[in-house]
Amino acid sequence: MIDNVRLNENETAVIIIDQTKLPGAEEYLTLGTAEDLYDAVFELKVRGAPAIGICAGFGIYVLAKTIDTEDYEEFAAQFKKYKDYLNSSRPTAVNLSWALNRMESVVEKNRSLPVAQIKALLGKECRAIQEEDRQMCRAISEYGLSLIKDGDGILTHCNAGPLATSEYGTALGPLFLGKERGMEFHVFADETRPLLQGARLTSYELSRAGIDVTLICDNMASLVMKNGWIQACFVGCDRVAANGDAANKIGTSGVAILAKHYGIPFYVLGPSSTIDLSCKTGDDIVIELRSPDEIKKKFYEKPMAPEAVRCYNPAFDVTDHTLISGIVTEKGICRAPYTESLAAMFAR
Amino acid sequence: MIDNVRLNENETAVIIIDQTKLPGAEEYLTLGTAEDLYDAVFELKVRGAPAIGICAGFGIYVLAKTIDTEDYEEFAAQFKKYKDYLNSSRPTAVNLSWALNRMESVVEKNRSLPVAQIKALLGKECRAIQEEDRQMCRAISEYGLSLIKDGDGILTHCNAGPLATSEYGTALGPLFLGKERGMEFHVFADETRPLLQGARLTSYELSRAGIDVTLICDNMASLVMKNGWIQACFVGCDRVAANGDAANKIGTSGVAILAKHYGIPFYVLGPSSTIDLSCKTGDDIVIELRSPDEIKKKFYEKPMAPEAVRCYNPAFDVTDHTLISGIVTEKGICRAPYTESLAAMFAR
Repeated sequence: MIDNVRLNENETAVIIIDQTKLPGAEEYLTLGTAEDLYDAVFELKVRGAPAIGICAGFGIYVLAKTIDTEDYEEFAAQFKKYKDYLNSSRPTAVNLSWALNRMESVVEKNRSLPVAQIKALLGKECRAIQEEDRQMCRAISEYGLSLIKDGDGILTHCNAGPLATSEYGTALGPLFLGKERGMEFHVFADETRPLLQGARLTSYELSRAGIDVTLICDNMASLVMKNGWIQACFVGCDRVAANGDAANKIGTSGVAILAKHYGIPFYVLGPSSTIDLSCKTGDDIVIELRSPDEIKKKFYEKPMAPEAVRCYNPAFDVTDHTLISGIVTEKGICRAPYTESLAAMFAR
Repeated sequence: MIDNVRLNENETAVIIIDQTKLPGAEEYLTLGTAEDLYDAVFELKVRGAPAIGICAGFGIYVLAKTIDTEDYEEFAAQFKKYKDYLNSSRPTAVNLSWALNRMESVVEKNRSLPVAQIKALLGKECRAIQEEDRQMCRAISEYGLSLIKDGDGILTHCNAGPLATSEYGTALGPLFLGKERGMEFHVFADETRPLLQGARLTSYELSRAGIDVTLICDNMASLVMKNGWIQACFVGCDRVAANGDAANKIGTSGVAILAKHYGIPFYVLGPSSTIDLSCKTGDDIVIELRSPDEIKKKFYEKPMAPEAVRCYNPAFDVTDHTLISGIVTEKGICRAPYTESLAAMFAR
């Protein structure tokens, strides 16, 4: 497995693999200062919501250790400064503020203890964040693996593998777990325009683990399915509404429509933190629009369309619940009708 | 309009606009040898089934003129060598072999004439191929325009415009014709990976003509349709089987499946030369497979996937006739059941 985010030996820095350099180079970065940590998140050197959360947890711990005081108030004030600074590196990523708030609550709950002891508890907490993510990925992988069999062809879109999480990943988790158990899958990875997470990350992670993977352009999925090469689709998710509508990387809904047309099961895999019962349907999910330059210029030697041509560049789309065969979380597999099954599993 | 394929003044070479250099540069190439002509087709410097046919007609004429003999048998034998060589440059496009066969039949039918006279007849024939294509495009544009109304949103895939044909183009023809008549359409152009004909050519041609065009990645078509922005899909075709199955640029079948899902009519537009009644169904159409480098490396500053990762890179797919609302040729519009309607219009 790729060790994407970890503490260094004496716990004075966070070591990450620089995802912007993949797949050309496997470069590890040692992040010891607040500025280093901020830049790594801001510049997408570490990406994937869970991985960002883990990096932030380790990062704020490393920074807390540098606060040279025995005075609680002084310590807590400086901690908050670091926290706010790291939290501003990508304000929209939920896991970032989630992990930082969780670390801060350790500081607040233990104000009566000596600062040195609070620092030790922070170390424990950030390790727990990673360990919980690891267990979550393992559980999703087990449930996902129960849906496929040895020799199956699997189509995936974007990247929800180890780089984005811990150890196994979510949508790719069942494939890594199956591989460990001697199973062979034939994975088709959509390159996932415009940011090419499938080409740059998914095909890299899978081939590195010795899993049979074939890279295709997004528009080739229909023919690959028609050829009979796909027995199931596995995709991640960014948010799932109460009725089962699932937001994920742009293009996911198209894959689901193709899968339905060809009679192939389509599964959404993700942690329970992405199930948002307060969101009634996919219509309540706001779609982020991004720069035209990602379509026309990014990665290319020269612009691929005239400057004057308009682009529409949504980062996500919503897959209608009627197209989804199952929603897999660490707590189990939900099936239609989702309004009932999701409420039963996730309502408090 | 862009002058995409023509003979040079003394008819010793074919001049084409290098489509691989668009939209960054409008460069013209002079093709005077068999190798030049082969490479231009193979490397997609000239592309689009009708344009390939026109180029092949002009090309075999130019080569025939270089055959330095008065002996018919010797001339015909060398002609056939050139023909077979050019014909091998791309297997799927029916217009290539159609145009070459048409030129060869001039040679065969006129065996009693002096070679110099046969050469002159070949010159007449290749000019006729282009003029017929021009008239064909106009007729297709008229029929296509009857299917849409002012203000409609149109989705197109790949490029079947003037660059691919003569003058108006096929799939884009109705939009150019409508524009001339003061109508406004809102066109969404799939970028069409891996060779980006939609980004490089379609968005270039349409915006150059002042037609409202928005460029999207292929995987965004589903969301664009869901948004209610598309009233019809117009695509070209490379070969249509007797049952209406239509081969076209990879990704076309996916667009058709999405259109059906969203209840949007999906039209295939092309010259009658692409109707191949000898081909019973789409299963008989051979799909050209191309290099992995087109997916991993082409156009990019650096490789976007690991060297070791396999790619599947089919250049075409076949859209099932059940997904097609109408097949538009210069002779009229065929509707399902296609086995009957195509036979009625095209059987000799």
